Amino acid sequence: MDERFKKQLDFSLEIDKEKNIFRQTHLSGNGRNENDAEHAWHMAVMAYLLREYSNEDVDIAKVMLMCLIHDIVEIDAGDTYAYDDENKKTQRDREEAAKERIFSILPDDQRDELMSLFEEFEENETAEARYVHAMDNLQPLILNDSNDGNDWREHGVSAEQVYGRQSRTKLGSEKLYDITDQIIQKHIKKGNLK
Amino acid sequence: MDERFKKQLDFSLEIDKEKNIFRQTHLSGNGRNENDAEHAWHMAVMAYLLREYSNEDVDIAKVMLMCLIHDIVEIDAGDTYAYDDENKKTQRDREEAAKERIFSILPDDQRDELMSLFEEFEENETAEARYVHAMDNLQPLILNDSNDGNDWREHGVSAEQVYGRQSRTKLGSEKLYDITDQIIQKHIKKGNLK
Repeated sequence: MDERFKKQLDFSLEIDKEKNIFRQTHLSGNGRNENDAEHAWHMAVMAYLLREYSNEDVDIAKVMLMCLIHDIVEIDAGDTYAYDDENKKTQRDREEAAKERIFSILPDDQRDELMSLFEEFEENETAEARYVHAMDNLQPLILNDSNDGNDWREHGVSAEQVYGRQSRTKLGSEKLYDITDQIIQKHIKKGNLK
Repeated sequence: MDERFKKQLDFSLEIDKEKNIFRQTHLSGNGRNENDAEHAWHMAVMAYLLREYSNEDVDIAKVMLMCLIHDIVEIDAGDTYAYDDENKKTQRDREEAAKERIFSILPDDQRDELMSLFEEFEENETAEARYVHAMDNLQPLILNDSNDGNDWREHGVSAEQVYGRQSRTKLGSEKLYDITDQIIQKHIKKGNLK
């Protein structure tokens, strides 16, 4: 087997570990915690189906790939809960080190390509990155909504915190932000958000 | 919320159930059984990274989407193990009924599009379908290889059975079939395949 192919297969096996990185979000039907691989799969399918609501035209192949790889760094860095202010302080450093180690398993051209795509997601300055962030917010929101806001109640999350995070959805999609706002308002009325 | 948007969100929530459909394949490191959503995510990333080995040029957005949705029918039909001849007899009928119910949650145009993409995968007559089938074979193979062939030993699978299934990989990628053949030969020598 040539070196290039071996590196590609080594990386393919390495990312299997993303299935063991669990998030605070629970599956619908008050199921178990969701893992990063499932979250990325779900986001990619939703991104395709809801692309008509992106504020800007997007390259949908790039969007799907960005969804699929955006959490690979968490294999080393772990999942940082959106409302965990303490761990958020070190998140960037942990993810930078992970990015270097994991993507460097690939051949150089693919390492550069995937690192760059991940950085584009992080910087959030392109149409695709903004739309993927909208999806990164909406996907756990619909699960949590289906579970009557249990993920928020469990962590005592406030409406202000949720709006702080979800406001970024508006940059990617006004339409998806509208439904986000309706869902948050419903849970404030039900007392599921402080 | 308009009817179209509601249907799209209903479908987005429905497919969450794919995360509860478990396969016979185990995660690397002799981990737990893998589920369909994880398998689809893994296939889609691998399909992107290994596309240079497809026998024919492929539309990579179509390939990734086909990977992502190819097992959605298993939400109703369940996973049918590749070497379970009894359940394979009813697989087509179970998956046909599932296809109708699940994709019909979507607006008509998206129902037609995803059904058609799933049928294209099943018929295996386009470059994209052949390459996605290669990925559907290779992804569990690298996991099982990393676990020293445990999935085969657990079910007493024979080399003939494995070649029967994996031979389809050649239609999508000669290069990926070469490594497949090397892996199978290694496990025959180790006594992991009857």
